[in-house]
Amino acid sequence: MLHKEDFIAQPLIINRGDIEEKRREIKAYFNQTYDSYETLFETLKSDSAFYERPCSLRHPLIFYFGHTATFFTNKLVLAKLLPARIDPKIESMCAIGVDEMSWDDLDETHYDWPSADAVRHYRHQVREAVNQLIDQIEFSLPITWQSPMWPILMGIEHERIHLETSSVLIRQLPISSVKPHPLFPVCPKHGLAPENRLVEVPAGEININHQDPAEFYGWDNEYGQHHATVSAFKAATFLVSNQEYLVFVEDGGYDKPEYWNNEGNQWRKYTPLKHPSFWVKKQQAWYLRCMTDEIPMPWNWPVEVNQLEAHAFCQWKAQQTGKPIRLPSEDEYLRLREHSHVLDFKEQANLNLQQYASSTPVDANQMGDFFDVIGNVWQWTETPIYPYEGFKVHPLYDDFTMPTFDNKHNIFTGGSWISTGNEINGHSRYAFRRHFFQHAGFRYIESAASVQTEYLTYETDRSIAEYCEFHYGAEYFGVTNFAQRYAEIAINAIRQDTDFKNREDLSVLELGCSVGRGCFELAKHFSQVTGLDFSARFIQIANQLQEQGSIRYSIPIEGEIMDFKSQSLKQLGLIDFAARCQFLQQDAANLKPHFSGYDMVVAINLIDRLYEPAKFLEMIHERINDNGLLLIGSPYTWLEEFTDKSRWIGGYKDSSSGENITTLEGLHAILDENFSRVAAPFDVPFVIRETQRKYQHTLSQFTIWKKVT
Amino acid sequence: MLHKEDFIAQPLIINRGDIEEKRREIKAYFNQTYDSYETLFETLKSDSAFYERPCSLRHPLIFYFGHTATFFTNKLVLAKLLPARIDPKIESMCAIGVDEMSWDDLDETHYDWPSADAVRHYRHQVREAVNQLIDQIEFSLPITWQSPMWPILMGIEHERIHLETSSVLIRQLPISSVKPHPLFPVCPKHGLAPENRLVEVPAGEININHQDPAEFYGWDNEYGQHHATVSAFKAATFLVSNQEYLVFVEDGGYDKPEYWNNEGNQWRKYTPLKHPSFWVKKQQAWYLRCMTDEIPMPWNWPVEVNQLEAHAFCQWKAQQTGKPIRLPSEDEYLRLREHSHVLDFKEQANLNLQQYASSTPVDANQMGDFFDVIGNVWQWTETPIYPYEGFKVHPLYDDFTMPTFDNKHNIFTGGSWISTGNEINGHSRYAFRRHFFQHAGFRYIESAASVQTEYLTYETDRSIAEYCEFHYGAEYFGVTNFAQRYAEIAINAIRQDTDFKNREDLSVLELGCSVGRGCFELAKHFSQVTGLDFSARFIQIANQLQEQGSIRYSIPIEGEIMDFKSQSLKQLGLIDFAARCQFLQQDAANLKPHFSGYDMVVAINLIDRLYEPAKFLEMIHERINDNGLLLIGSPYTWLEEFTDKSRWIGGYKDSSSGENITTLEGLHAILDENFSRVAAPFDVPFVIRETQRKYQHTLSQFTIWKKVT
Repeated sequence: MLHKEDFIAQPLIINRGDIEEKRREIKAYFNQTYDSYETLFETLKSDSAFYERPCSLRHPLIFYFGHTATFFTNKLVLAKLLPARIDPKIESMCAIGVDEMSWDDLDETHYDWPSADAVRHYRHQVREAVNQLIDQIEFSLPITWQSPMWPILMGIEHERIHLETSSVLIRQLPISSVKPHPLFPVCPKHGLAPENRLVEVPAGEININHQDPAEFYGWDNEYGQHHATVSAFKAATFLVSNQEYLVFVEDGGYDKPEYWNNEGNQWRKYTPLKHPSFWVKKQQAWYLRCMTDEIPMPWNWPVEVNQLEAHAFCQWKAQQTGKPIRLPSEDEYLRLREHSHVLDFKEQANLNLQQYASSTPVDANQMGDFFDVIGNVWQWTETPIYPYEGFKVHPLYDDFTMPTFDNKHNIFTGGSWISTGNEINGHSRYAFRRHFFQHAGFRYIESAASVQTEYLTYETDRSIAEYCEFHYGAEYFGVTNFAQRYAEIAINAIRQDTDFKNREDLSVLELGCSVGRGCFELAKHFSQVTGLDFSARFIQIANQLQEQGSIRYSIPIEGEIMDFKSQSLKQLGLIDFAARCQFLQQDAANLKPHFSGYDMVVAINLIDRLYEPAKFLEMIHERINDNGLLLIGSPYTWLEEFTDKSRWIGGYKDSSSGENITTLEGLHAILDENFSRVAAPFDVPFVIRETQRKYQHTLSQFTIWKKVT
Repeated sequence: MLHKEDFIAQPLIINRGDIEEKRREIKAYFNQTYDSYETLFETLKSDSAFYERPCSLRHPLIFYFGHTATFFTNKLVLAKLLPARIDPKIESMCAIGVDEMSWDDLDETHYDWPSADAVRHYRHQVREAVNQLIDQIEFSLPITWQSPMWPILMGIEHERIHLETSSVLIRQLPISSVKPHPLFPVCPKHGLAPENRLVEVPAGEININHQDPAEFYGWDNEYGQHHATVSAFKAATFLVSNQEYLVFVEDGGYDKPEYWNNEGNQWRKYTPLKHPSFWVKKQQAWYLRCMTDEIPMPWNWPVEVNQLEAHAFCQWKAQQTGKPIRLPSEDEYLRLREHSHVLDFKEQANLNLQQYASSTPVDANQMGDFFDVIGNVWQWTETPIYPYEGFKVHPLYDDFTMPTFDNKHNIFTGGSWISTGNEINGHSRYAFRRHFFQHAGFRYIESAASVQTEYLTYETDRSIAEYCEFHYGAEYFGVTNFAQRYAEIAINAIRQDTDFKNREDLSVLELGCSVGRGCFELAKHFSQVTGLDFSARFIQIANQLQEQGSIRYSIPIEGEIMDFKSQSLKQLGLIDFAARCQFLQQDAANLKPHFSGYDMVVAINLIDRLYEPAKFLEMIHERINDNGLLLIGSPYTWLEEFTDKSRWIGGYKDSSSGENITTLEGLHAILDENFSRVAAPFDVPFVIRETQRKYQHTLSQFTIWKKVT
């Protein structure tokens, strides 16, 4: 029999210590986690409750009961630490479906759930296997992402997340299906809430540089660099209480679309509720549903709502007060947390199961000027989760974080009474869909600063991602980055040209600039760079880089297995030149007149993709200053899908002379009127990755032309 | 004013001599050719005859009059010896359309022919330009294909061909449009023909090894190696005379389909004639149309027919005599020519315009046991023109020969009274469509030996040609030939295997063998090699190599400009092993039971192109002997167009565990039941050429498996 204090876990330090001591710590931490999770399910009144739906779009709890053990098996098999599955049938049922599903996935006739005892037996088998592995695994300190101990830690922290989310699901079961449990006591303290007030948080910097190996286990989304400046703001002293929120409810807030954003209004149409989800109204009196109890409304406890409700409340509050009231951003929360030094108050906070299995009054846990900066309930932010600079997917769990980088999952912060382990170590970043319920409420702030709510998502369009990698990604087969190389060629050509060599005010036009790397490279020498491309999607990527400094994309490793990449101008040493560039969508064969007066025009891998290449070549001298240069590169891959055969400028047998006309001859035929060719043609190779093993390897023939007048 | 003897050209030797002397010789040879050609057109009664059609499917003579000069301009511009065209308008009309055209190309409203005087003026300009060039070109001896003098020689010999073919066109004009010319006299000798008889030609060898630089100018089709053994045969002493042929005509030969082959019967339906084309019947008497005259039938002159008529006559003659009478092959003609030492009799032959502007009696020109082995009229053979081993296209004229390698153009031999220059130097090989008329007849032979009438044509199907080059062609980016490399890997694996290392009677099955190179390489060690592929076209190429020793294909250089390649097992050092191979079309995922009992199975770049890869992998152990080996290589490029996603064996997220399954894991999951993997997986690169500048560069992951029992 466990005691309440057995639940309280000490943080597991993984970057120092003695190996065998660490092995014992890990083993204890694992068993405590496993025990806590199993104990949680003792709040179910009978085994039949395992098969009830806590929510119409979620699996019954039997799935979650089996799931955390199955996760161990799956990751340990994947990491080749377990030679075989332990119970393939249970494992096949308990692996997939953690999140909300669509209604048609949930037809229960699809599922033939195992008995609770079968799952208990299975959990026991997994516990044995994991204990054995912990005893045997050879590892060293620090424990890194690559360590064989990592998947064990991953399984433990994964179960700790489910300890919390399962407690929410249990809270969503009918009250008749659950029972109080001595180890999960409800806080007895309630009364009226104090009046909330706004307190100044001075401006400050956020500087995160979290790298593997770190002190604690972390999920991939925690690692990387992040720097931000936060303007001064005022934050509410208390989390919003049930009492403070009631005014919004009674003001008809749930019926007034003006307080809700688009997604909130969508959600309002779907939900029948006109109040927070855990509020229960009986004969005109409000009650609160806790995990295992329904109690008269504790008005001074924090209200628990989803992000959409929290956002609507703030809008209402702003209108009421005439002040810029809103949810904080993630950075503002971090600033508040640092300002309050709350990580020093961890032991006074309502978290880590160290106080109650419920909320406590909003004025119970003081931390400097504020209360509950950590603990009690999670606090929603306005910030959709996004990757830090240098983010990498952990290969053993590539869908933990990636699917949430969609601007639809918002970060919440601070942890709740049942947040433990990684959830409360100060580095973790958790995000949920905005309509989701957890033990989560909010604290509002007053700030006129704007909040970023749209982040770069991963470019998944195959051809665009291919070009992102081509321009900004790795080099393959030892072939130098192509855009870098051709920009160098252009720069060298103009540097060596007698008419331009001493000038520093040069302009260049790149036609067919694709996702823009060539332009950023050209900007190292040219003070004005215009990049044009026919594809708006390509230009969008170039603009993203210029405006936000980075891009993200996914490219195939093998089949559907993807690699996730992030590139930044800073890493590439290009950030200082970006302001010299301008990117626009434009048809090279039908250029607007104002794209003129350039000292150089660069057109790489363009002419064989134009529908009227001759038209382009015939007019291009009009866009170039006297004595200016033209750099053309092309593999001359003429294809009828891009250019009607009658319009190829080479690569055909001439219908009049019957002779073969190469593209080089075709170029001369058109360009010789206004240009003279400088130096001999030469080939420059480039490589485009299609998958981890398949590449296009091509030679582009380069010619440099000087305008003659 | 020219004299008849001015027409008689001496052969132009190009591989030795004094440079300035050679320059003078070339200049004289050019001007003589040019003069002869212009003199020929003096047989037209007036300039209006230039615009008459000699034949419904040919241009009027004005085209040909301008064409030989235009050809000089085109090739000299192409060779960058002339800076610009001389008369673009005339040149655009006189370049294309030498051959028979389809009826809709010939709508004369498309053509606004220049005046004869305009063309005369143009020809004069070209003559000046060429003379100037001959004076100026720097060249050395020997004159090779690359020499700047080569395009001059090409233009001269091209004009000499047209001297002959235009004489045929003039012969096809109405008699009222032409007039006799003192320099083109008709032979006055005619009478009855001698009875033909068959004379023995002993067996012998043909050994040709004609390489650049050679003694005389040559067309590309003359170069390369050719070796053949010719069985003894009997050849007719005389060319078939009009008199001998009359019996066939009077026997109703033109109405009896049984004497004609398919193409001959097709032609019979099209032509209204029941006799040779140049025969004219007036009031029950036969006349012969010569170039400028119509004369009472000279019965002892050689009959002039197309190849289809010649072939039909032989069939008829064979039936009449009960002997295997037929046309000779090219090799048999060469054997006859060598046996008769006729090149020693050149000055007694009716060729090079040295006797008449017409045929002479078939018994006028004796050469040993035979008459007219060279000269008088061309002699049709049964042999469609084909390239010699080592054939290469001359880049300045890539469509002189290539389009005739289609099994539809038959070689004729020996030359006619107006054959000059290259036509009669003993190396040249001329071929025409079988229904075409020239100053051509035939000599029949008696031989039971069969004649090859179908030669390899150039594979032009893009994807098949790509694979031909991939297996048998050049290496790119320094990447070793892939089939050679994987065969080596397979051989090394079995050589190092304890169960097989001392055995020499090993068998191997290659699945997905494509065009077969891997099998030929495997046969170096395995005594029995079975190659299977799903594609019948691929298997056809492998079989061609096995049966005929070589393949030919064309691959793109740039756009439509093609490179023509020929590969042989001999060059590749594989000919001695070919007999160990067997190639069959077969579905790897549904293998017939008898493909079993192999010591090794090789499956390279196969599994990701199967529609049911698992089915294949699950059964493959049944085809392998105990302890046998399996070599798998694949870039794991899974594509739904080949394999439904539900059937990929890797490269997906497992629907049950939610984990990424790599193809390597998928292979283990299936193969581990019957195999153990030998050594670590490793990547082998391969390169497939698409154009001269565009390649696929891919890494195939290799795994070697040993069957466990």
